[in-house]
Amino acid sequence: MRARTAIIAGAGRLPATLARALPEALICAPAGIAPEGLSVAQPFHFERLVPFLRDLGNRGIETVVMAGAIERPSLDPALFDRDTAQLVPDLLRAIQSGDDGALRWVIGLMEEFDLRVEGVPQIAPDLLIAEGPATARAPSADEAADAARGAEILAALAPVDVGQGCVICAGQAIGLETLYGTDAMLADVGRHRPERAPHKGGTFVKRAKAGQDLRVDLPTIGPATIEAAAQAGLTAIALQQGHVIVLDRDAVLARADAAGIALWGMA
Amino acid sequence: MRARTAIIAGAGRLPATLARALPEALICAPAGIAPEGLSVAQPFHFERLVPFLRDLGNRGIETVVMAGAIERPSLDPALFDRDTAQLVPDLLRAIQSGDDGALRWVIGLMEEFDLRVEGVPQIAPDLLIAEGPATARAPSADEAADAARGAEILAALAPVDVGQGCVICAGQAIGLETLYGTDAMLADVGRHRPERAPHKGGTFVKRAKAGQDLRVDLPTIGPATIEAAAQAGLTAIALQQGHVIVLDRDAVLARADAAGIALWGMA
Repeated sequence: MRARTAIIAGAGRLPATLARALPEALICAPAGIAPEGLSVAQPFHFERLVPFLRDLGNRGIETVVMAGAIERPSLDPALFDRDTAQLVPDLLRAIQSGDDGALRWVIGLMEEFDLRVEGVPQIAPDLLIAEGPATARAPSADEAADAARGAEILAALAPVDVGQGCVICAGQAIGLETLYGTDAMLADVGRHRPERAPHKGGTFVKRAKAGQDLRVDLPTIGPATIEAAAQAGLTAIALQQGHVIVLDRDAVLARADAAGIALWGMA
Repeated sequence: MRARTAIIAGAGRLPATLARALPEALICAPAGIAPEGLSVAQPFHFERLVPFLRDLGNRGIETVVMAGAIERPSLDPALFDRDTAQLVPDLLRAIQSGDDGALRWVIGLMEEFDLRVEGVPQIAPDLLIAEGPATARAPSADEAADAARGAEILAALAPVDVGQGCVICAGQAIGLETLYGTDAMLADVGRHRPERAPHKGGTFVKRAKAGQDLRVDLPTIGPATIEAAAQAGLTAIALQQGHVIVLDRDAVLARADAAGIALWGMA
């Protein structure tokens, strides 16, 4: 029998999807975050992280999954307990080293409390895109070439810790993902297309950043992504196989097929 | 006395600015392009490039400057002369190798016709930003750090031939330049700022692509760039010294000072 698991839930639909795969899991969430479609059994404050982690151990939790978006919290000095307060200098140093650094620090801390951190690849591998076409239509040679060019651009950006997504059309970068995320990028592409050729076509490429910890913060798409891609005039979506979560898979593929979009898992 | 010079003029205000620095120059432009504030003495067709270049030599032209934006033309088969037609396979191969490849090919062809191709750095070096602050306000430590991060991101992108510009705020990339150019990027940043913090501040970084031929296609800013940066809530503009053209310098600096923007040439 599987050891008891806690889901640390952030925003979005991923936590509820994972909870369906793990009906026995304890649902935890930072105070103030209400995960979609999920009731929280155990809210916690970042300022009291040490007592929270200790309590998980006391309840027999051995495995933790972090899922969903958690923005950097502002911290209330009055809430800190003494143990957590002593960690603050380390935490601030980790935050300054970027999102990946902060996550690595949190994972390390959990491991110090004998909690095993697992990710979607271990817990619910079916949520990840597999290699090959998932839609009725496979990519054309041009779309596959644009996907390869996009993968090359994202590989160049990974060492500077930027971007998990881009849009390529006829070999040209027409969208590069920033802090504002995928939806913003796809909306921008749609807005700019009338300005200059090519006015339609193109491939949305989404990959994990090379070197990122796959246990947390995996790139995720859902039905709204397909809508946004279609509205931007795109005809193809290339997802790094085994590294991108597809939420509501049936709805995603139905909408992609309806829009004539080829969606596939690429190496 | 300077050898006679021809300006091959594209769109925008750069050709007229150069023409003021070179009053004796012969103004040429591709058929259909009307450079701002400049009358064209010698229009030409790409389909008749060889007779055009031969004619320049016959008129005693020794030096050519290319300035302003020229989009890839569509070619009319009926217009070709026999000599230019023979070059078409080479030209198509060069176009497929990207913008830089196409420009290198054109420069090589001009040199075969004994024309020397010069750029703004040789012809009008005063148009380029010099090292150090150009505005009343010098960059803050945070703005300088964001500029350094932006330079690092653009250096990572150069090998994949993408982007001459980006916007960084508090170490995060909030804008990355695509095919749609600088103005589109700045407008996108302004549009997305209400969505998430930081809601203002940030540095626009503009550099030549590492390895690009500095005789053509140098990055250029003007007063409209300052307006767009101010509207996006930015407070700083970092330009690679000696590699970025500032058009209407007095107007640019006056608008930057009025908006409290620090503009400087960085190494």
